Amino acid sequence: MSTESFPFLHADTPDDVAELITRSAAESTRWSRRSRQDRADVLETMATAFEAHQSEIVIRACEETHLAETRIQGELARTLYQFRFFADVIREGSYLEAIIDHPGSTPMGPRPDLRRMLTPVGPVMVFGASNFPLAFSVPGGDTVSALAAGSSVIVKAHEGHPETSRFTGAVMAEAAREAGHPDLLTLVQGRQTAQRALLENQLAAVAFTGSAQGGQAIQAILATRETPIPFYGELSGPNPMVFTENALEARREEIASDLTASVVGSMGQLCTKPGLVFIPAGKTGDNFLNSLSAQFSGQTGAPLLTRGIEDAYRSGIHARTDAEAVTVISHGTEAAGVRPQLFAVELDRLRSAHRQECFGPTTMIVRFSDIRPLLAVLRELEGSLTGSVHAESADGELVTLVIDAMASRVGRIIVNGYPTGVAVSWAQHHGGPWPSTNSLHTSVGATALRRFLRPIAYQDAPEWVLPPELRDDSAGLPRRVDGVLCLH
Amino acid sequence: MSTESFPFLHADTPDDVAELITRSAAESTRWSRRSRQDRADVLETMATAFEAHQSEIVIRACEETHLAETRIQGELARTLYQFRFFADVIREGSYLEAIIDHPGSTPMGPRPDLRRMLTPVGPVMVFGASNFPLAFSVPGGDTVSALAAGSSVIVKAHEGHPETSRFTGAVMAEAAREAGHPDLLTLVQGRQTAQRALLENQLAAVAFTGSAQGGQAIQAILATRETPIPFYGELSGPNPMVFTENALEARREEIASDLTASVVGSMGQLCTKPGLVFIPAGKTGDNFLNSLSAQFSGQTGAPLLTRGIEDAYRSGIHARTDAEAVTVISHGTEAAGVRPQLFAVELDRLRSAHRQECFGPTTMIVRFSDIRPLLAVLRELEGSLTGSVHAESADGELVTLVIDAMASRVGRIIVNGYPTGVAVSWAQHHGGPWPSTNSLHTSVGATALRRFLRPIAYQDAPEWVLPPELRDDSAGLPRRVDGVLCLH
Repeated sequence: MSTESFPFLHADTPDDVAELITRSAAESTRWSRRSRQDRADVLETMATAFEAHQSEIVIRACEETHLAETRIQGELARTLYQFRFFADVIREGSYLEAIIDHPGSTPMGPRPDLRRMLTPVGPVMVFGASNFPLAFSVPGGDTVSALAAGSSVIVKAHEGHPETSRFTGAVMAEAAREAGHPDLLTLVQGRQTAQRALLENQLAAVAFTGSAQGGQAIQAILATRETPIPFYGELSGPNPMVFTENALEARREEIASDLTASVVGSMGQLCTKPGLVFIPAGKTGDNFLNSLSAQFSGQTGAPLLTRGIEDAYRSGIHARTDAEAVTVISHGTEAAGVRPQLFAVELDRLRSAHRQECFGPTTMIVRFSDIRPLLAVLRELEGSLTGSVHAESADGELVTLVIDAMASRVGRIIVNGYPTGVAVSWAQHHGGPWPSTNSLHTSVGATALRRFLRPIAYQDAPEWVLPPELRDDSAGLPRRVDGVLCLH
Repeated sequence: MSTESFPFLHADTPDDVAELITRSAAESTRWSRRSRQDRADVLETMATAFEAHQSEIVIRACEETHLAETRIQGELARTLYQFRFFADVIREGSYLEAIIDHPGSTPMGPRPDLRRMLTPVGPVMVFGASNFPLAFSVPGGDTVSALAAGSSVIVKAHEGHPETSRFTGAVMAEAAREAGHPDLLTLVQGRQTAQRALLENQLAAVAFTGSAQGGQAIQAILATRETPIPFYGELSGPNPMVFTENALEARREEIASDLTASVVGSMGQLCTKPGLVFIPAGKTGDNFLNSLSAQFSGQTGAPLLTRGIEDAYRSGIHARTDAEAVTVISHGTEAAGVRPQLFAVELDRLRSAHRQECFGPTTMIVRFSDIRPLLAVLRELEGSLTGSVHAESADGELVTLVIDAMASRVGRIIVNGYPTGVAVSWAQHHGGPWPSTNSLHTSVGATALRRFLRPIAYQDAPEWVLPPELRDDSAGLPRRVDGVLCLH
């Protein structure tokens, strides 16, 4: 396969960009008219093609990101699974939310025949993430869920891993071309091209995984569009964790080890990294902090994903080290100028600067003496993808209080576990109040499709103009018929 | 009942507004914790209370809007039905999209226990519409769907019908107070108060039915918020209708009469009024236009909803009358300075100014000679709530072509019917590409709830901290369990 020749479309002029989006939009229409079965087959073909090029992909991704080989191999497994999972999701068909109301009478008078389902929005622009060269980049969850939904995709490849992007893009594009859809996936590079594409009228939605700053820049561009389109940003957040005294008593060493792994895994470059860890003041908390400090000392640094991310990490660390109220608890071994760092602060001296995400292998321990002020702080945190609590059964109502306080600020609540490691499944939700995401949708799991779909209804339409899924004789997918949910 | 004393909260100072939203947010949390059954009961109590005050409501609404009594009576029936329908919808429970994944193994490794459902977003601000003093105002679909979803509501009452707003608000507030939720519904008046409320941090979503201009003004305010929140605008659009030659041959007089009723009903002050009517050039079209012209001549004007709407209507009519390419076909009898007007233009002379909505009893007939240019124009129209086609079986493929061309620009496709008269049902979709709405959601029908809900997931949470709907032993609502949709 001549993957090396797969082009990034630089689209140097506004006309180039307009043509690119027009071609993508036309392809989107053709792709949306393929059956769900056909689209599922193409997704599976792509997964199989990745498998055939596994080692080439892993080598490129490791080289470009400095991430460990086992981590990249895990990410590739996740990526393949996502393709196959979304193939299953669209075959099953519930995601279409098909509803049929036959004509009837209501207290409002007679009701016509009404049939509703979801339909693809059109071309989706995906911004690849720095920290997942596969699972949140060209072949990532945003791309796959948009393709599954029936939309074409334009990916702005992240500059941190251009060769991985080009190679994986080529593998997918070849599978799409063989299925008759040469313009299904388009790669672009460069900020200017991306900016122009964002303003094109036919673009239907934007998915972005990255910094709050990057997300705000894209939103500012989108705000100048004549036609508003949805922006699905998966940005940042502190991912609070609360440990009760009982939990630390019962599992001190285990928690110290697992929490350290969650903070420094992938060099802390994960959107779900615990950034604010609340532990009790007093002896139990002190003992735990000693254990955690020891764990951190044993960690070794590694280069971060890009120079820019390293600079941002260093300045975040610098700000914490200099802050009057913050104590440096411990640090790991320096490598390539970056090292894991552990900080602590008293709850009543926690300032908003300490709460903000510092992307990299560090976390802020927050010591609390009393439950009320802890709950008040939890209720006012910036939005997060996750909030976690570790407790023992003796804690009783305390757990409910902490969960209630966090529930309005996070999208996923974890009990006695860690937020890093986001399973791909039907029930997964990877989203939360702003700025973690726009809160109404997820970027991981089956329901990620909903971002790229809009409803359409047909009134008194004859069978032959209806999509197959809305015909009376079409079985094989769950639908609501005359108010009653039916499985087939 | 002392409905006359029900206060609008003027909230003159920023502190007043902040307190108002804080109280509403606290109530929203309490309301969200009531069972679905309890919330459904309260909605039904409200409907019953409206029934007891039916005549007082109708008298006020007729006085303030100049709309006919039968129209207001119909609207009240719709309003009561909406309360009871949403009570049914939340009792049924599917709207929660509950999903349970028990722990398992996947190609990505072991998966924890994950349970997801939708949860209310928090306080919703609703802007009452001018043209539906009941069904899209204080007791309207936005309010009811937000209450059903589990959110509190702040309504900015439309200045066109303050007494109707106050009275219906009082009826609802009394029912809410009796159920223990005195701050569930708050009414505000005045642009400044509304502006301040839009900027309050705890506000979670905004629903607006009105002009594109009004919607843009609200969006501009929302764009200055620190935390973005969803804006659900139901604005404007041309609602194209296409009549084939065969349809006009077969049903000339019937169509002329029904189309006229659809255009001038409620004095054309409906968001689904047909604003662009495409008919063939040639003799059949000419004959139809004569019939339609005769129908229009028989219509009598009436005062429009507000002085501002009358002014806008007159200037829209003025622009059309003056346009070089546009022919005045016919008009009805003038009353209070406003009369129904019928215009026509050739397809190739249709300019964007003629396509824009003119709110009131007028429509633009567009004559087409050829199908290709018609399809091209349909594909490029501004987004609409609806698109309609009238055809006979002899038209065959033509119907599909027209529907395909309209499908990307509208939310509801109607065959051999009229867009006005929006049934409330499970399958209804009242939304469409911008600026008709933000395209992903509906403001009428069961799925209108989705606008005011966000997902939340629980990972490895013990049964007793889970919402009842996510417990293993909780039956009685449809859920997806381990990938399989279950009815109970």
